[in-house]
Amino acid sequence: MAKIAVTDGMDKKAVLWLEKAGHEVINSPITPENLLQDGLHGFDAIIVRSATKLTREVIDAAGDGLRAIGRAGVGVDNIDLEAAGAKGIAVVNAPRASTQSVVELTLGHLLASIRHLPRADRSLREGRWAKKEMKGSELAGKVLGLIGFGRIAQSVGRIAQTIGMEVHAYDPYLPPKIAKSQGTRLHKSIDALFSNCTHISIHCNLTEETRHLVNAERIRSMPQIGLDGARCGNHIINCARGGIVDEKAVLNALESGSLTSAALDVFEVEPVDPSHPLLQMEHFHGTPHIGASTVEAQARVGLDIAKNVNALLNQETCDFIVNQQYL
Amino acid sequence: MAKIAVTDGMDKKAVLWLEKAGHEVINSPITPENLLQDGLHGFDAIIVRSATKLTREVIDAAGDGLRAIGRAGVGVDNIDLEAAGAKGIAVVNAPRASTQSVVELTLGHLLASIRHLPRADRSLREGRWAKKEMKGSELAGKVLGLIGFGRIAQSVGRIAQTIGMEVHAYDPYLPPKIAKSQGTRLHKSIDALFSNCTHISIHCNLTEETRHLVNAERIRSMPQIGLDGARCGNHIINCARGGIVDEKAVLNALESGSLTSAALDVFEVEPVDPSHPLLQMEHFHGTPHIGASTVEAQARVGLDIAKNVNALLNQETCDFIVNQQYL
Repeated sequence: MAKIAVTDGMDKKAVLWLEKAGHEVINSPITPENLLQDGLHGFDAIIVRSATKLTREVIDAAGDGLRAIGRAGVGVDNIDLEAAGAKGIAVVNAPRASTQSVVELTLGHLLASIRHLPRADRSLREGRWAKKEMKGSELAGKVLGLIGFGRIAQSVGRIAQTIGMEVHAYDPYLPPKIAKSQGTRLHKSIDALFSNCTHISIHCNLTEETRHLVNAERIRSMPQIGLDGARCGNHIINCARGGIVDEKAVLNALESGSLTSAALDVFEVEPVDPSHPLLQMEHFHGTPHIGASTVEAQARVGLDIAKNVNALLNQETCDFIVNQQYL
Repeated sequence: MAKIAVTDGMDKKAVLWLEKAGHEVINSPITPENLLQDGLHGFDAIIVRSATKLTREVIDAAGDGLRAIGRAGVGVDNIDLEAAGAKGIAVVNAPRASTQSVVELTLGHLLASIRHLPRADRSLREGRWAKKEMKGSELAGKVLGLIGFGRIAQSVGRIAQTIGMEVHAYDPYLPPKIAKSQGTRLHKSIDALFSNCTHISIHCNLTEETRHLVNAERIRSMPQIGLDGARCGNHIINCARGGIVDEKAVLNALESGSLTSAALDVFEVEPVDPSHPLLQMEHFHGTPHIGASTVEAQARVGLDIAKNVNALLNQETCDFIVNQQYL
């Protein structure tokens, strides 16, 4: 039996699951001050979301019994992976819980962009019947370019193919046979992806390599015309991480017409500043980082992280250790 | 060689196609007064959209040479089918041109509803980062109910299945084996469809049988909970024809919570009155009847109707005669 601190809240079913597995769960926040003192003494594991910051200092202050850190979600920016590794503490996350939710949000943004959904609704609420201003284009017969071709992108691609799109991808870390088995054309350079695709959707991490990967020059190289000959324009979607898209470049491209629409769920600075110039653009629409904000993803993430932390505590194998290189 | 009047405009490529087929095309409006006099004398065919009204009087006033009427679109409310039939004039339409566009708009509205896209964009533009208010639900694991199971609905169903939904349908005119071959459960009553489905999308014509088919009682019978156990709520989409949905019932259901969201592309009265109470609802969004408003559908409809009218003029078979019963 282990003692587990849950400091940022957790789905009830997940707490029950851990208790049934024989653990004691203390479901309560711990202040940053207490974390730096003896707040984590006596605990074998801690499960956090994004609010609790597990810095080097906090990890060094934890008792020697701490063996596992669980992050109920994907991003581990709030955890010092190296400091944890140095103390032999494995860090696990729950990356699959939000996959389907992000896939559906991406498709929603894509369809909302090409058919002007937020803009059309806005015009109705303003009392205008602006049917003639709302001519859109179809996804069928166009090329969707996916930056990164992991779980989320593969699922987006499969649905886009059913809609009638051709799917291309750029992913330097992917074995080419995976793309091939999905009927997806894998490009060797990011520039080739842009020059072939009227619609681009981002599904990679933010790293020094991917920062401002969507820039002015690449947007200008997009073809504007579909495989079917239709003048559909160019469209960008980002439901991955802010900063991969250069927002100034997107703004300028919307103004010049080299971009027809842009839809962002994530931003370079969050929360978005109310004076952000994109919020004034007719052909932009956005959502406040809600990729994982569904009842299903939130229920799933609790159970997933409970199982992963339990596996660590029982010294079973676990596929979701994110600091293996420091252990 | 035949002489063809095109009175509501037509895509250039379609005009060229008719000319290459050996016909003379007069691409110019004819006033209602001229239509009632000799405006249609000397013409073998007329191609209209919705602006030109071909009433019994107009058809009776046409010369005896008129053999074909083409409607570049689907709805033939502006043409007296019986009067045309009585004079031996076949009426053809071009129902397939907008299929893909309506399919994609339907999916866009469905995804925009469950993830609050217009509402989330509105909150960002108001300067709020309302992430916590935007918790949505997934389509995967839910049951989509399609009212009518023709071309559009079948295509919507196929994509919904790829997303992970179970698809049900109600269509009293459909051979059950068609639904079965698509993995779709066909209900024998409309009430059974509603009580099984958390998401309902409409794909039938407006007739006396379908007017206000979506009513308060049926909305109340929807299950609120998905097959996966998630509390996803109830959702209605209408991209077919206004009047099939009782808008007062939808308004009341949004207020009482028996409906979680409603998205309408079509309305009982169009253009929508700026004071329409639905336009004030947080969980409603709408578009101004833009199902066929894409560059692709508009190009396709011209070519389709050109080919259909040409077939009639050459006495070839044509699958799109809509007044066969009066001929």
